[in-house]
Amino acid sequence: MSIHVASITAPVNIATLKYWGKRDADLNLPTNSSISVTLSQDDLRTLTSAACSAQFTEDKLWLNGEEESLGSKRTQDCLADLRQMRQQMEQADSALEPMSQWKLHIVSENNFPTAAGLASSAAGFAALVTAIAKLYSLPQDMSELSMVARKGSGSACRSLFGGFVAWEMGQLADGTDSKAVQVASREQWPEMKAVILVVSDEKKDTSSTQGMQLTVRTSDLFQERIKTVVPQRFDEMKRAIVARDFEMFAELTMKDSNSFHATCLDSYPPIFYINDTSKKVIRLCHAINAYFNRNVVAYTFDAGPNAVMYYLQENESKLLPFFYPLLSTVEGWGTKFTAETLQGFENTFNTQYKADFPAMLDPKLAEGISRIIPTQVGTGPQETNECLIDPATGLPK
Amino acid sequence: MSIHVASITAPVNIATLKYWGKRDADLNLPTNSSISVTLSQDDLRTLTSAACSAQFTEDKLWLNGEEESLGSKRTQDCLADLRQMRQQMEQADSALEPMSQWKLHIVSENNFPTAAGLASSAAGFAALVTAIAKLYSLPQDMSELSMVARKGSGSACRSLFGGFVAWEMGQLADGTDSKAVQVASREQWPEMKAVILVVSDEKKDTSSTQGMQLTVRTSDLFQERIKTVVPQRFDEMKRAIVARDFEMFAELTMKDSNSFHATCLDSYPPIFYINDTSKKVIRLCHAINAYFNRNVVAYTFDAGPNAVMYYLQENESKLLPFFYPLLSTVEGWGTKFTAETLQGFENTFNTQYKADFPAMLDPKLAEGISRIIPTQVGTGPQETNECLIDPATGLPK
Repeated sequence: MSIHVASITAPVNIATLKYWGKRDADLNLPTNSSISVTLSQDDLRTLTSAACSAQFTEDKLWLNGEEESLGSKRTQDCLADLRQMRQQMEQADSALEPMSQWKLHIVSENNFPTAAGLASSAAGFAALVTAIAKLYSLPQDMSELSMVARKGSGSACRSLFGGFVAWEMGQLADGTDSKAVQVASREQWPEMKAVILVVSDEKKDTSSTQGMQLTVRTSDLFQERIKTVVPQRFDEMKRAIVARDFEMFAELTMKDSNSFHATCLDSYPPIFYINDTSKKVIRLCHAINAYFNRNVVAYTFDAGPNAVMYYLQENESKLLPFFYPLLSTVEGWGTKFTAETLQGFENTFNTQYKADFPAMLDPKLAEGISRIIPTQVGTGPQETNECLIDPATGLPK
Repeated sequence: MSIHVASITAPVNIATLKYWGKRDADLNLPTNSSISVTLSQDDLRTLTSAACSAQFTEDKLWLNGEEESLGSKRTQDCLADLRQMRQQMEQADSALEPMSQWKLHIVSENNFPTAAGLASSAAGFAALVTAIAKLYSLPQDMSELSMVARKGSGSACRSLFGGFVAWEMGQLADGTDSKAVQVASREQWPEMKAVILVVSDEKKDTSSTQGMQLTVRTSDLFQERIKTVVPQRFDEMKRAIVARDFEMFAELTMKDSNSFHATCLDSYPPIFYINDTSKKVIRLCHAINAYFNRNVVAYTFDAGPNAVMYYLQENESKLLPFFYPLLSTVEGWGTKFTAETLQGFENTFNTQYKADFPAMLDPKLAEGISRIIPTQVGTGPQETNECLIDPATGLPK
C-alpha cells in the first residue's frame, strides 16, 4: 500500500487577553481580538500524524488511543479547507499526486491529561491543520493556516505560532482577515515562565461555546468590554510584550482575566468558572505583588478553575517560595526542580516570608489543587520524526 | 434626675437593586439609585432607646450590651443634624426645653447576631435617627429623616420605610435630594416572603465602604453599570413592584445582584463576596425556575456570601421542598414552620422533585450554611413601649 505520512507537534496557548464571544459561530469569528502566550511543548503538546492513501476507504481519527468520530462540522470544515488548498496545487501542477481526493487517517496524542481543562482543543486543531498542511506540502504560511485552525476551535489559531501571539479579530464577514500573528517570538522574551495549578472542581460549568453565546446574548456589561475595554487593552498589551514590560503585562493580564469572568457572572443565568480555590490563588498573587511593591506574578483563568501564573525567570526564587511550601504535597514539582532547589524555596519561605504572611498562607489551598505544571514560553508547531502511524498499514502503531 | 426617653424599633432592608459606589463619601451620596425590600421586624430589628438630660455629662452609646464609642464622624454627623433640627424648633418656641444642648444616652440591641452580615448598620442608623427624632418631637417626615440616616450608613435611609423602598440618588452636591421614598407599602404586596441563608465564610472580604471606593476607581465596567444598566433597571423594577409582577421583579433582582458582583470582580484587585456555597444556591434557584418554567424564586447577595431569596407566599409549597430536605439540619426552620409543614416539604420533595434533580441537589450545601431565617416584607420604624434605658439613672437597664 502506498501511504504518505507526516507528523507535527503543536503547543497549548493560554490567553492573557481573553477570547470570549463569537460574532459568527459557524466561522468562529470573535467579538474581540485576543493575545496569548504559547507554552513549551516539553510540557504540553499534541503530537499528530496524518496519512493519506488512495487505498484508504474513509477518513478516520484516533485520539489518545481511541477511535473518534471525524464527523463534527468543525473538523469537516478544516479538512475541506485543507483539501481545497491541495486541490489548487494539483490543478496547477498535474505531476502532483491527487492527495486531495484521498481519504485521511489521523492519529493524535497529548502528553498531558485531556480532561484537565488545559486548552487541549487548541493544540489539537493546530496539530491537525499543520500535520495535514505538511502532508500536502501546502505553501500557505502560518497566518493563512491559522484561519483554518480557527474554524476548528477559535483559540487554536493562536497555537500556530510560538512566543506571544495576537489573534486579530478582523472585520470581514467571511473571516479572511481573522487570523493569528506573532507579536514577539520566544527568543525575544525567553525569560517568561509559567506555573499551571490544576484545580479540582466538582463539575464543569457551561462549555465555552455555550457560555460565550450566553454572555453575548445576556450580559449588560459585555458590550462595554468588547467595544471599549479590550481594544485599548489589546494595544497596550502588545506594547508591553514588545517592550518586555512585565509590570504592565502582568497588570493587563490580571485585569483582563477578571473582566472576562465578570462578564460571565453578569450573564443570565450567571456562569461561574473560577471557584474558591481560584480565589485563594488570586488573593495570594495580589498579596505577593503588594509585598514586593511590584508585579512579580500575573494570574489568568480560562473557562475553568485552573490558574495559570506567569512570571519572569529572575523572580522565580521570589515567587515559588510562597507556593512550594503550601503545595509541596501536590504532584508536579519534581519535573523541573531538584530536591535542593525545592528545599531552598522552603528555607526562603520559613526565614523570609512566613512571619509576614500569616493570613494569606492557607494550608487548605493544597486540597483544591491536584497537580502543578511548571513550564515556560515555547515554540510553535514543530516537525517531528516521531510517527504515530504504521506506514505499512496506515493504522495507529 | 429629669430624663426624657424615647424608643423605636427599625427594620433591616435587603436591596434588590444594589447600592454600590459613592459619588461623595462624606455625605454618602451614591452613584446610582437603589431599591430594597424592608424585612419583618419580627425576625430582624434593632430596638433603640434614646435619652437626654441636662444632667448627662457626655454622649454615650451602648450596643448589644457593650459601651461603644460615639466618636465616629458618621454618627457625629447624624447627631449634629438632629440637634440642628431640634434647635430650629427651640428657636421658634421658647417654651421648649433646650434638649439640643443636652447630652444623649443611646442604648441599642439587635434581635439577631450582628456578625452574621445582615445589614445591621442599616437598621442601627435607622433606629438611632428615628429614636432621637421621636425624643426631640421633630416634625420632619420619614424622607427628610432618611437623609440624616443616609449620612450614617447609605443603605440605612431605606430602612425608614416599610414595604418596597427606593433610594433616589439625587443630583445636588449637598445631598438634599438624595433620599428614600416608598414605592409600595407592605399592604400593597403582602405576599412577598423571604428566606435568608446565612452562609459560613472563612473571612470577610473588603468592607463595603472600601470595596465600593475600589470599584468606582478601578472597574472598567462600572461606569456602564451606573450610567446605562441601573437607571433603566430602576424604572423597570419600580414598575414591577407597583404591578406586583413577580416574574419581572425576580429577573431584575437576580440580574442586578450578578451585575453588582461582576463589578466587584472587575475591580483591581478583584473583590469577592460570594463563595462556592453562594454559587450552589444561585444554580439551584435557576434550576428551580427552569423546572417551573417561570420565576418562583429570586436570589440576591449583598457584600457577603449570605443568600436572600424572595418568593411569593403562593409558591412557598413549591419552593421550600427543594431547600428543606437539603438543609433540614440547619437551625431556623422551627421559627416559622410546624413539624407537619416541614414533613410536607420533605414528602413533596421525595415524591415530586427528587427524581428530576439528581445533579442539582447537593447534599454538601448544608455544610456551608449555618442558619436559615424565614421572614417576609415588613413595616418601617415602629414606636414601642419597650425601653432599654432606666428612666431613673439614664443608664442601660
